Amino acid sequence: MSGPHEDFVEQPVQPPVTFETSPDQYKHWKLTFEGPIATLGMDVQEDGGLRPNDYKLKLNSYDLGVDIELADALQRLRFEHPEVQTVVVSSLKPRIFCAGANIFMLGTSGHGFKVNFCKFTNETRLGMEDASAESGLRFLAALNGICAGGGYELALACDEILLVDDGSAAVSLPETPLLGVLPGTGGLTRVVEKRKVRRDVADYFSTLTEGVRGKKAVEWRFVDAVHLTSKFADAVAARAQELAATSDRPGRGPGITLGPLSPAIDGDRIAYRYVTGVIDREKRHCELTIAAPDSQEPASPKEFLAAGDQAWALRAFRELDDALLRLRLNEPEIGTIVLAATGDPAAVLAVDASLDQHASHWLVREIIGHIRRTLKRVDLTSRTFFALVKPGNAFAGTLAELVFAADRAYMQHDDDETNTIQLSPMNAGRYPMSNGLSRLEVRFLGDPGRVEEVLARREPFVAPEAEEAGLVFSAPDELDWDDEIRLALEERCTFSPDALTGMEANLRFAGPETMETKIFGRLTAWQNWIFQRPNAVGEKGALTTYGREGRPSFDWRRT
Amino acid sequence: MSGPHEDFVEQPVQPPVTFETSPDQYKHWKLTFEGPIATLGMDVQEDGGLRPNDYKLKLNSYDLGVDIELADALQRLRFEHPEVQTVVVSSLKPRIFCAGANIFMLGTSGHGFKVNFCKFTNETRLGMEDASAESGLRFLAALNGICAGGGYELALACDEILLVDDGSAAVSLPETPLLGVLPGTGGLTRVVEKRKVRRDVADYFSTLTEGVRGKKAVEWRFVDAVHLTSKFADAVAARAQELAATSDRPGRGPGITLGPLSPAIDGDRIAYRYVTGVIDREKRHCELTIAAPDSQEPASPKEFLAAGDQAWALRAFRELDDALLRLRLNEPEIGTIVLAATGDPAAVLAVDASLDQHASHWLVREIIGHIRRTLKRVDLTSRTFFALVKPGNAFAGTLAELVFAADRAYMQHDDDETNTIQLSPMNAGRYPMSNGLSRLEVRFLGDPGRVEEVLARREPFVAPEAEEAGLVFSAPDELDWDDEIRLALEERCTFSPDALTGMEANLRFAGPETMETKIFGRLTAWQNWIFQRPNAVGEKGALTTYGREGRPSFDWRRT
Repeated sequence: MSGPHEDFVEQPVQPPVTFETSPDQYKHWKLTFEGPIATLGMDVQEDGGLRPNDYKLKLNSYDLGVDIELADALQRLRFEHPEVQTVVVSSLKPRIFCAGANIFMLGTSGHGFKVNFCKFTNETRLGMEDASAESGLRFLAALNGICAGGGYELALACDEILLVDDGSAAVSLPETPLLGVLPGTGGLTRVVEKRKVRRDVADYFSTLTEGVRGKKAVEWRFVDAVHLTSKFADAVAARAQELAATSDRPGRGPGITLGPLSPAIDGDRIAYRYVTGVIDREKRHCELTIAAPDSQEPASPKEFLAAGDQAWALRAFRELDDALLRLRLNEPEIGTIVLAATGDPAAVLAVDASLDQHASHWLVREIIGHIRRTLKRVDLTSRTFFALVKPGNAFAGTLAELVFAADRAYMQHDDDETNTIQLSPMNAGRYPMSNGLSRLEVRFLGDPGRVEEVLARREPFVAPEAEEAGLVFSAPDELDWDDEIRLALEERCTFSPDALTGMEANLRFAGPETMETKIFGRLTAWQNWIFQRPNAVGEKGALTTYGREGRPSFDWRRT
Repeated sequence: MSGPHEDFVEQPVQPPVTFETSPDQYKHWKLTFEGPIATLGMDVQEDGGLRPNDYKLKLNSYDLGVDIELADALQRLRFEHPEVQTVVVSSLKPRIFCAGANIFMLGTSGHGFKVNFCKFTNETRLGMEDASAESGLRFLAALNGICAGGGYELALACDEILLVDDGSAAVSLPETPLLGVLPGTGGLTRVVEKRKVRRDVADYFSTLTEGVRGKKAVEWRFVDAVHLTSKFADAVAARAQELAATSDRPGRGPGITLGPLSPAIDGDRIAYRYVTGVIDREKRHCELTIAAPDSQEPASPKEFLAAGDQAWALRAFRELDDALLRLRLNEPEIGTIVLAATGDPAAVLAVDASLDQHASHWLVREIIGHIRRTLKRVDLTSRTFFALVKPGNAFAGTLAELVFAADRAYMQHDDDETNTIQLSPMNAGRYPMSNGLSRLEVRFLGDPGRVEEVLARREPFVAPEAEEAGLVFSAPDELDWDDEIRLALEERCTFSPDALTGMEANLRFAGPETMETKIFGRLTAWQNWIFQRPNAVGEKGALTTYGREGRPSFDWRRT
């Protein structure tokens, strides 16, 4: 940390977080299969936290490590298990489903870590809803016991929620009364927006430490059904089958296997097969370069199945996703990400043609979905993105989305005009943002006719054309390029990181709002505010004192 | 302040803020009239700030006092000047339109004050857009010089923006680069949502200290036209007339006069003609009671004109609005507002019938509009609202909106069943919330058919019926009433004030989002976060060091 300020609670020293895992390495989840039904069983190991000396993960409470496994399991269900149509999310611990995010973990984490933890957790839960809406993979929460806070938020992300009726099992969001923070992983939003609980009922519920159970929980819409303990397993199994019947997934294998990405890390350089990241600590930026395909890519579903996780469209975006997550968690001081794309744009457009043609095939649908979610990860990453479009660039079709996802794109105007951007049908709504619009639609909100115009053009745009069409921010000529880019990057890194985070969050998502944007815009922004209020994280704040001696002491002034 | 924590910057001691003023008392604005055109001329008195010892209002910068006058002028334009169809917003200072919110005021204000200042300022600007959309009162910003930050945000709230082209006059949002905070009075939102500036252009613009001017400002959509100095006045006058031609306001008088409310204040009790507020400091709540009409109310436009500001529908809600504003600014520790309504519900329903019947008359339209905005003020007040519906209550029609605006409503179930709630046509969308839906529509998002059902019923609802219909949260019987209410109020005031603020902001506005909800949800929430970050308000924060010796020093970690 180079700045003069400390968070209220200093972030503990910890090794860099890595996001790759696999079922054989899981500590906290068991994934089992029976025909079209998979069961994701939560069984959190108390001593298996990312910082085991600082907290114990009791009562199926979770930390980032637990969620990284969950995110991995969801990816594998999508790619490796096309036979699965319903995922039952349950717990392997008796009478406990999940007690939510671990409070001691939160209480001992720095502000930035808490915020990024919640963001990742939100993305994972929204990924479940994405899997149901876009890929027909249904989720059934089978709540066999206590389901509190983040545990209930996980249940809320499922299509349906069944609760055991044993006289004690309840769902609850006790963050406000117990911890002085929000149920910030989508909880409040999903209660009123997705489950459409009446606002006064939601208000009451969100102040109850004990939550609601039994018929009341159904009547108030917090769960879909309750079943006596003796009948619970059968009811879950039956409902899982019914949900499976609504799925359009293949219902049979084989899938493909997601192997490790195994990047080569050398100091401040990380190199995957297609993505390379180079950090400049002094300038506080990272150049993230994505290479176009350089060999034969699959052109049919059969070939996609044969290529498996080595298909460029999957592999390159898995790498990009991994690089973004590492930057978010492990490199908070790197404020700007400079995006570049190298290689043959025609190779990208050829991949796009295959993706577009076979979009209804389950595997191609998953690959497109993964690109869509990775591009959303860019939109939601609180770093500045500048795209640099230089001669030899491969910003075509799917990769051009990165140009539109960037806060600004600069395109070099060279005399030979070999520097181009080209669009493909994949830019026409295959990768909607969180607000439901394509990046071109958001870009041209003020001139909607232009979306069709630029999409209708099949030829590449040279720099002055791209600037004129509004595809890039600026197109300096060769002579000015170096200075203009240098100055833009230097200037950006003089601004307050917090102001940039707020500014970008407000400028990136013009247009409609959805449950997803409400979670990241409204709920998260308020939670971040609360996460640094003395009433939560001060010495006598509720989050700090929870479970320790002494009760919280509040500054009663409302803001 | 009873809590143990301090804001980063302690709020200076200052007398309670009052919100009533009138043109003859204005220090900072001059309101002039010429036929259908009014000119609102900004001429801020440097030494006329609310805390003149702490800051000087140079360069037409403003503080809350300046904005209170603006809000008053807007009210008077609506009610007192039906002849006005266009308001030209300009400056009486040469070559300076407005430099925005005063930075030294912000730098020396506590967190809660800053937040409430911005909220009021946002409400006032949204009130201009409301006046144009709902009442045909057009606003033309005539920018005769420097227009920065909050000054440009004021311009953005106008229907159109004309900028003088004198080689130096520019519009800018320099908050990010200069102050490390956001243009938080709607600026970022209006740039991309209302004026639909492309996001990369908006990003660039929001990092420029000098802003943009001339043709570029037009091309980029930041202003609607530029005119040379020599032609500026004529162009403004011509455009003002053209806008007036689109107005459906009467274009002639007389209006009515808004007299002072002159509440009687006695310790912790404030008594207006219809509204009474009683603060219980120990319990940290305020009982706010609104009385139904108790004498003959106007039933025709002619009678409304004759009654003027004494008509119950106008006076009672002016009083409510004033009481809410005082509570927000002057009583931050009062966390819960208990709403009651007394008197004859039939009298309220009679007023509703008159309002509904004559809604298209300009004055009735303004009265309805004022009620609508006051009810929004409730929705946007970060205090808990509990409505108590007791025998003798007057929660009918328009006043029933307060029941639906409350976080919870409790209704006493008495054996005689004389305690009722009754709806009127005024509950059917006359008072939309910021999200564009009626309070009943938001309430029944999960069961939309119920909106028509409850509206179709012309008879009153007794307590069990109101509970069954979902109009109130709970209907305890007489025996349980006292205990249940006492416990609910006591419990509420044990919770973290910050968690409650965030929770309520997330539960109150289910359904669609609009520019207005984006400003209060997304932009404000992020600004509030930034407003307490050390990078802004710490000893070396940008807001603290602005204009003083030393440059800001940032913690570079992105969050």
